[in-house]
Amino acid sequence: MTTEIPFSKGQGTGNDFVLFADPDGLVDLTPVQLAALADRHFGVGADGVIRAVRSAALPDGAASLAEDPAAEWFMDYRNADGSAAEMCGNGIRVYARFLVENGLARLPEGGALRIGTRAGVREVRPDERGYRTDLGVWALAGGEPLVRAKNLQVARPGLGVDLGNPHVVVALATDEELDTADLSYVPVLEPEPVEGANVEFVVPRDPLIAEGVGRIRMRVHERGSGETLSCGTGAAAAALAIRYWAGVGAPRRWFVEVPGGSLEVTVTDEADGEHVWLAGPAELVYDGIVSV
Amino acid sequence: MTTEIPFSKGQGTGNDFVLFADPDGLVDLTPVQLAALADRHFGVGADGVIRAVRSAALPDGAASLAEDPAAEWFMDYRNADGSAAEMCGNGIRVYARFLVENGLARLPEGGALRIGTRAGVREVRPDERGYRTDLGVWALAGGEPLVRAKNLQVARPGLGVDLGNPHVVVALATDEELDTADLSYVPVLEPEPVEGANVEFVVPRDPLIAEGVGRIRMRVHERGSGETLSCGTGAAAAALAIRYWAGVGAPRRWFVEVPGGSLEVTVTDEADGEHVWLAGPAELVYDGIVSV
Repeated sequence: MTTEIPFSKGQGTGNDFVLFADPDGLVDLTPVQLAALADRHFGVGADGVIRAVRSAALPDGAASLAEDPAAEWFMDYRNADGSAAEMCGNGIRVYARFLVENGLARLPEGGALRIGTRAGVREVRPDERGYRTDLGVWALAGGEPLVRAKNLQVARPGLGVDLGNPHVVVALATDEELDTADLSYVPVLEPEPVEGANVEFVVPRDPLIAEGVGRIRMRVHERGSGETLSCGTGAAAAALAIRYWAGVGAPRRWFVEVPGGSLEVTVTDEADGEHVWLAGPAELVYDGIVSV
Repeated sequence: MTTEIPFSKGQGTGNDFVLFADPDGLVDLTPVQLAALADRHFGVGADGVIRAVRSAALPDGAASLAEDPAAEWFMDYRNADGSAAEMCGNGIRVYARFLVENGLARLPEGGALRIGTRAGVREVRPDERGYRTDLGVWALAGGEPLVRAKNLQVARPGLGVDLGNPHVVVALATDEELDTADLSYVPVLEPEPVEGANVEFVVPRDPLIAEGVGRIRMRVHERGSGETLSCGTGAAAAALAIRYWAGVGAPRRWFVEVPGGSLEVTVTDEADGEHVWLAGPAELVYDGIVSV
């Protein structure tokens, strides 16, 4: 049977999404249907598909409601191949804007939404850059593998960062080195993490730190996707790694330039540890109706 | 000023288009606006943008009307960078379907539309494969440059074919050779045509000719775009070159498999020379509204 789905297309720093509302969890698309939607030539085209569904309507959402009864909406995020993903740092901002602009969620006093994800409940709030979201507690994990990439002259030591998904961050010496690295090939990590990793290549801006804010540029190779215009958790991992290397007294606030735009990463102390926040643009580009 | 544009997204063998109706020629988008529409991450995303405009409303359309008063509609085709293109063999099928399904054009007795393009007036008619279009008179042109591509073991002689745009067709020996050629690099032609060329890499099916029909597989590197899922004039050029090499008695009808699907190429004799026809799918995928 064919279903007509009204949808919105949205993007944050060039990471783009098909979003549609299914409050009662009635539209359960198969991986094949989701991949067809995300196909850039035969379908609508996107990095991911986000279903807006009430937490109460999904088994995954029940866990979110147990964690926080205010998490009315769940982000059912699917990758372009139809597989489920736990979280998407750029996607959750666009999702929050989609909920608010379509009147599905109302920003409460103080302006913060609590959104259920497979990685747990996340806070999202409007911000001068668009929206700002809590990425949760971060950790050093994954060791310091050597990283090789095509056109990089020498192997360089990376730093493993865990943000719910695994990252390895590498500092390069110059903008030229960053610009000429060929990320159409998968970077080689030694030792290779069992589950692979997203790899961020970073150079400092000049100066690295000014007026209490750190500034870096990065490119990212996403596990399974290749080079992308932006990766939200990747930008956070890059800022955290450079901050770690910079040592005691390094700033809590970082501006990260990615090929698709600019993101802001902030570190806060919470009861359960150091949290990372990501702020950046959240744009709704157009509305459509598609049959699946 | 922001304009809201209702549009359809369509595709033929994976070559995809944003189509919108502007009967009176009032929506004159700049190259920057067109490129933003065609951007796959920040816009709608497409290989090209097609404006449906009455021939009488455009200077280019006046030439079409002078050639054939039945050419009520003009195909204002723009590449993804906003530049104007003369013709698009896959686009004109999708355009015809867009006109008919939106009630803008009615198929007359006999079922053929006459559509104005910058390459002249073209006939388009419904067909069991979707739509069929006249690509006009073809010619051998461009000589027989040697072609090199990454992962091809040896340089091979190509054949220049002119279909309004320049093509060089190369026959390869095996499916494996076709599959392993790396078209992420621009093929090298020797001598290099002044204006460049689209390069088609072709292998025969086994058998090449059965029941009076020729069968080939091809991949294409489009000038300025890189490898694409399909190129309509490229499929025609490939069939014409293999037919030329096959010699006297070779069939007039060819099935061409491209990465995005299957096309049919037919040769007919007309008063002004040998015409090439292209038949293939024309799908409207979804409707949307976007602000530009």
